[in-house]
Amino acid sequence: MHCQELFKPDGRQLTLYSRAPITALAAAPSPFAEPLGANPHLRWHPLRGEWVTYAPYRQERTFLPPPQYNPLAATLDPLYPTELPRGDYDVAVFDNRFPALALEARAPPPLIVPTAAARGHCEVVVFTQDARASLGALGLEHIELLLQVWAARTARLAARAPVAYVLPFENRGAEVGVTLHHPHGQIYAYPFVPPVPRRMLEQERAFYEENGTALLVDLAQREVASGARLLYRGQHAVAFVPVCARYPYEVWVTPLAQVGQFAALTPPQRADLARALKTVLLKYEGLWQRPFPYLMAWYQAPTDGQPHPETQLHAQFLPPYRTRERLKYLAGTELAAGLFAMDALPEDKARELQQVAVSLEPP
Amino acid sequence: MHCQELFKPDGRQLTLYSRAPITALAAAPSPFAEPLGANPHLRWHPLRGEWVTYAPYRQERTFLPPPQYNPLAATLDPLYPTELPRGDYDVAVFDNRFPALALEARAPPPLIVPTAAARGHCEVVVFTQDARASLGALGLEHIELLLQVWAARTARLAARAPVAYVLPFENRGAEVGVTLHHPHGQIYAYPFVPPVPRRMLEQERAFYEENGTALLVDLAQREVASGARLLYRGQHAVAFVPVCARYPYEVWVTPLAQVGQFAALTPPQRADLARALKTVLLKYEGLWQRPFPYLMAWYQAPTDGQPHPETQLHAQFLPPYRTRERLKYLAGTELAAGLFAMDALPEDKARELQQVAVSLEPP
Repeated sequence: MHCQELFKPDGRQLTLYSRAPITALAAAPSPFAEPLGANPHLRWHPLRGEWVTYAPYRQERTFLPPPQYNPLAATLDPLYPTELPRGDYDVAVFDNRFPALALEARAPPPLIVPTAAARGHCEVVVFTQDARASLGALGLEHIELLLQVWAARTARLAARAPVAYVLPFENRGAEVGVTLHHPHGQIYAYPFVPPVPRRMLEQERAFYEENGTALLVDLAQREVASGARLLYRGQHAVAFVPVCARYPYEVWVTPLAQVGQFAALTPPQRADLARALKTVLLKYEGLWQRPFPYLMAWYQAPTDGQPHPETQLHAQFLPPYRTRERLKYLAGTELAAGLFAMDALPEDKARELQQVAVSLEPP
Repeated sequence: MHCQELFKPDGRQLTLYSRAPITALAAAPSPFAEPLGANPHLRWHPLRGEWVTYAPYRQERTFLPPPQYNPLAATLDPLYPTELPRGDYDVAVFDNRFPALALEARAPPPLIVPTAAARGHCEVVVFTQDARASLGALGLEHIELLLQVWAARTARLAARAPVAYVLPFENRGAEVGVTLHHPHGQIYAYPFVPPVPRRMLEQERAFYEENGTALLVDLAQREVASGARLLYRGQHAVAFVPVCARYPYEVWVTPLAQVGQFAALTPPQRADLARALKTVLLKYEGLWQRPFPYLMAWYQAPTDGQPHPETQLHAQFLPPYRTRERLKYLAGTELAAGLFAMDALPEDKARELQQVAVSLEPP
């Protein structure tokens, strides 16, 4: 993996990644000339016992781009700079202009609940220069590079004092609120382990103390043994609709052996994880022969420098559709109570996805 | 409050409620002739440490109603029975035909995670016979009656052995997945305290042990003292955008004194809570001069027969819009991490709602 670091005129960092050496670039563009001075703050939610972050500085842009302007495409017209330069890179990462968490955030004024500076970091990961591609359409080597990029970003963010947890994710499709179709994801670096991964870690710790193995490694083995919900089974990685799916087309992708974080993947594990990931994405795309929206989140160990034999690197896909025409809305019981109600059995949805034939490049 | 109980031909129960005596009805209609035998089951989600419920029996209805058929309107044509009879009632409650939890559920076969019968109960609460009304358009006495109905349903459900928690809620608007516009809500009776109220109870217990008062009573007093986010302040009840709102137009409605459940409301408290509730609903409706979608959930004490001086009956409104045109999508950080990110400050959204003038009937 090759990379080049640059700074944008407004102070944000840009890093370009490629499988081949990158021709050095002199400067990085930005649609914005001046630093924003993002200053998000946290407020404590005493009833839920969790923080909420507030970033009330999303001001109107003064910038008026042409109709086809895509901020994630390489800059063609210097009058309308995008977020990215022209160049021979495969993946690019830059600081989010409007972050929900910022390393430079300052302590907010007191309120009737505890408050704190929302320290952390938010960045955008552009998966490819091809605006019309999708993650699943990328070659296996390109997807492997992305797994390496996530490892590199995690290591870099973990080195910043306030960062406790790094979460790469992709929101895909208008149905999940994304209007920019250029393939990209985001990385959030949190100053604490946020509620969902914290809960998972508690469950994983309890399981490890009782059984001496990682909960998800154990569950993946059971899914392989059952086979009923299996979508991919390689030498090192597996993908399945989990037996306890909360979304009709929910899928998890994980190494078979215990691996706590991206950086701990061996090259064969990374290669097989890329195959598992691409298989799932192609099945999604093939299911209704149209782009398939989802939230994809990659969970890994906290960045506390401790060993985490109890936890398992894995992706969870949470797609919003429950049938070709119908969205699954999170409503009363899901949002207000936290008990997810499913009309579909995971076995039936897995069968639909199992029946979508996909072909990968030979290993 | 007057009520009449009836059974539908398919075995489901219907209860009619009115402020005035109800002329006795001989029979209750149903769009369905035969019992469904709903048999939902629970599966344990080991990573999240929570149950998920599966109700895979939503079969296609064989029933072909006329285009204007509204299953929540009173039956006009006996060839096309609805869920409700003609009669002089104000509010009606009937068993959900397709429940996510059912008292008669049987133990499911074993799987690779623990499973259990999804015992519990789901019912539909029709707020009024007027299909074109809305909760906020109902008179104060009608809303008070609804608060009494919620108390009566809670008491009735609490008497069933498996029930541990009763949650009345309303999903309103196509934006939250509701296609039936006749004003109605639902009640879920859970066989355990579900994750969201369980977490709240833990926080409330810890606060009570430390301070000897209910957390939300304390917070409501601080909201009243601050005034910045206040929408209604009566003698017994209050409504405000909470300082820690997770949704731009989130509002909480609660009595000022500690009240654990609907049944414990005094008549003056109930009357003022109705005024607070109607005020919020009229402000929502007035904000953009159009129906305002939301999820409204009413939290109360678990139905364990124990005193709960730590917890507070209250409604949380979670509206899906963040501006007049834009929905707030729950995406990566909210769904995958559990850290809610807000672009809007609660103070600014409260100001918008404060500026909507509403007029109630004089107290």
